[in-house]
Amino acid sequence: MNRRDFHRALLMGAVTHAFGPTLLRGTTPPALRINGDRLNANLARLSEFGKNPQGGVSRVAYTDADRQGREFVMQLMRAARLEVSMDYAGNVSGRRAGSVPGLKPIMFGSHIDSVPEGGNYDGTVGSLAAIEVAQALAEAGTTTRHPLEVIVFQNEEGGKQGSRMISGEFTPANLELVNASGRNIRDGVRFLGGDPDRIAQVRRNPGDIAAYLELHIEQGGTLERDDIQIGEVEGIVGIKWWSVDVTGFANHAGTTPMDQRRDALLAASRFVDMVHRQARALTGRHVATVGQIQAFPGARNVIPGRVTTSLEIRDLETAKMDQLFEIIRKECEAIGSASGTEFKFEQAYNSSPSMMDDRVRTLIRDSARELGLSNRPMPSGAGHDAQSISMLAPAGMIFIPSVGGISHAPKEFSHPHDIVNGANVLLHALLKADAASWVNT
Amino acid sequence: MNRRDFHRALLMGAVTHAFGPTLLRGTTPPALRINGDRLNANLARLSEFGKNPQGGVSRVAYTDADRQGREFVMQLMRAARLEVSMDYAGNVSGRRAGSVPGLKPIMFGSHIDSVPEGGNYDGTVGSLAAIEVAQALAEAGTTTRHPLEVIVFQNEEGGKQGSRMISGEFTPANLELVNASGRNIRDGVRFLGGDPDRIAQVRRNPGDIAAYLELHIEQGGTLERDDIQIGEVEGIVGIKWWSVDVTGFANHAGTTPMDQRRDALLAASRFVDMVHRQARALTGRHVATVGQIQAFPGARNVIPGRVTTSLEIRDLETAKMDQLFEIIRKECEAIGSASGTEFKFEQAYNSSPSMMDDRVRTLIRDSARELGLSNRPMPSGAGHDAQSISMLAPAGMIFIPSVGGISHAPKEFSHPHDIVNGANVLLHALLKADAASWVNT
Repeated sequence: MNRRDFHRALLMGAVTHAFGPTLLRGTTPPALRINGDRLNANLARLSEFGKNPQGGVSRVAYTDADRQGREFVMQLMRAARLEVSMDYAGNVSGRRAGSVPGLKPIMFGSHIDSVPEGGNYDGTVGSLAAIEVAQALAEAGTTTRHPLEVIVFQNEEGGKQGSRMISGEFTPANLELVNASGRNIRDGVRFLGGDPDRIAQVRRNPGDIAAYLELHIEQGGTLERDDIQIGEVEGIVGIKWWSVDVTGFANHAGTTPMDQRRDALLAASRFVDMVHRQARALTGRHVATVGQIQAFPGARNVIPGRVTTSLEIRDLETAKMDQLFEIIRKECEAIGSASGTEFKFEQAYNSSPSMMDDRVRTLIRDSARELGLSNRPMPSGAGHDAQSISMLAPAGMIFIPSVGGISHAPKEFSHPHDIVNGANVLLHALLKADAASWVNT
Repeated sequence: MNRRDFHRALLMGAVTHAFGPTLLRGTTPPALRINGDRLNANLARLSEFGKNPQGGVSRVAYTDADRQGREFVMQLMRAARLEVSMDYAGNVSGRRAGSVPGLKPIMFGSHIDSVPEGGNYDGTVGSLAAIEVAQALAEAGTTTRHPLEVIVFQNEEGGKQGSRMISGEFTPANLELVNASGRNIRDGVRFLGGDPDRIAQVRRNPGDIAAYLELHIEQGGTLERDDIQIGEVEGIVGIKWWSVDVTGFANHAGTTPMDQRRDALLAASRFVDMVHRQARALTGRHVATVGQIQAFPGARNVIPGRVTTSLEIRDLETAKMDQLFEIIRKECEAIGSASGTEFKFEQAYNSSPSMMDDRVRTLIRDSARELGLSNRPMPSGAGHDAQSISMLAPAGMIFIPSVGGISHAPKEFSHPHDIVNGANVLLHALLKADAASWVNT
């Protein structure tokens, strides 16, 4: 029985106390489960920090509520017998030693900051589940081969700042960015107790982290709709943004006959409808969205002469994004010539897709199966800290259902039993990673 | 030969000096023409008041530029041997006595205030042409039967305030309305030298005015497009405004698949396209416009959950406006159920159509024909002071071509020869009205 088979047997309950205290101490890992009641109770306690009158939280990074929430999280880490520290960037880590000297840590965690008027689950489920996993291991007396690092990244909602400081994507110019707290990152890092002048020292190198795991709510409605318990994230979509400018000719709405108009809003409206139609016509799981629109001069009695609008395309494949954009751009030529208007596209943002590691995905899939949970591969349409860390280490993400697909809103909700399922998959995938031959052995 | 036939003969050149000095003095009315060079020169001089660096004028009512322009107009009136006065509302009149005692005045004129960054022709052509007509009559020694009143209404662009004070449509609550000058009407009237507390005394009654004529630029492009020199206005369209509220469900643009969206902007876009399509499908000269749109929350990466937009319908017939609105409202139900959204309409404004007097229209048509000018009946898509005065007197409007249909913009332009044509039609229609048996004889 090699190490891998041994661990599989352990998890399946076929092997008990087969090895000495170095590897496993005092419990039966196959039966090991996190404490679901404690996890859900801690989520409820965390939701008090920055609580909104209408439900959900406004725990924006660099606010008092954020700092209080982080204090609470550090208490939980200590209760889980983790050694708590904060790096210069303000990322909070809870560490626990491994049994094999020289191995790099397996990192797992998420974030606890929220958007303004956000929900109680985005980031917090993964953060508190990671602490709960550590506590369950501690209570079971289980020591892993690798050191463990439970991490709570700072300011995910403001652009994954904490994890990008670790991956090295953060540049000094980003220090001036102001997030929804009203503070810029320089002041925000200081506010959390970090040191903005030493952020460069926070950076880690490929190989410094053995593997990375993150549990998160789906934030979409596909798992709930299809009654699937666990999503095995294939990758995090790339995002492209364009600013779209439509030029027609402003004119008097009373004196300009319908057939003599060069109505920029009519053209922009056909654009919005066409984007939706073409995105649906193309096979795949890409999405395309028009979220912004402004008409000039914007009076009830003036035919709009100019409209500024936006286009966002997301997919796991850059080629698919480019293909859809080309279709849209070409269709706009037809819309323009039919309506006497002109379209101009300017790319405003471009984030490449981040693929999750196939081997980590397999661990997640196997864990879900062994726990008897339905599961399926899926893209993540939203950005996550796992994107940053996937640049340094084999990374994987576990999704659980979001009721109604609602996120970034007070009504964001995931069922307690789904949270418990997700945390157990995190626990088991972590143990499998710890045992896997390819993980920094 | 009755009076009507006589006047027709006069205009056709068949009768000269047939009657004594009371009716006609010193010239041959059939050949009477305005002085086109003087009229166009005066238009150029007036355009200096409130001149924009980029062309056109910003001569908003109740500004210094407006007051200076009015001073200039009063000088021109005096030069045209008119007796100048201003009513409590700030409307400027230039009067000249008629030959037959007891007859009510024939009124003709327009306005000289502009929209911000407006053009040099809207209102000014009709105002200065009216003064030019009076001057031509004075120079020819022609005295009309009726007294003449050349009028320059105050603040047309801010809602036809001056003419509505005369028609009695103005209410004291309107005194608080603030126009683009930043002044409310109360202060604006005072600024012009009027008395806001005595506006009620300005009101005139049906029968106080024998007839009303107004020359104006078309502000649309139909006369120029079809190479017609004179538009005989059938009426001024009614205007209905609605505020349109589209409710869907805001959601994450990355995690919500295309087929699970309730995108309020997609629904609003289909509404804009449908309004245009249905307006064109219905036979008639109505127009329908969507000029305003706002998406909420209005972020590139959030599917809009709510859109507020507008609908304007204009036509000469209220029944046609109602018919088109019913089609639109019904189509919105289909758009709503296909996109998981809901439309709500709230009427925001309703102005009834004002029909021009058929007999005055005939005078205008006959004058154009006799002057050898191509002409055709047409609706006015824009509002005019003639709407107010049509409540008190038989009213008619003369349109001349606007190059490119551009108005309310610095590029607004009418050819000098078209202005001269329009002023001559005004002159001849005025003389015909003066002679007509049905005009307050």
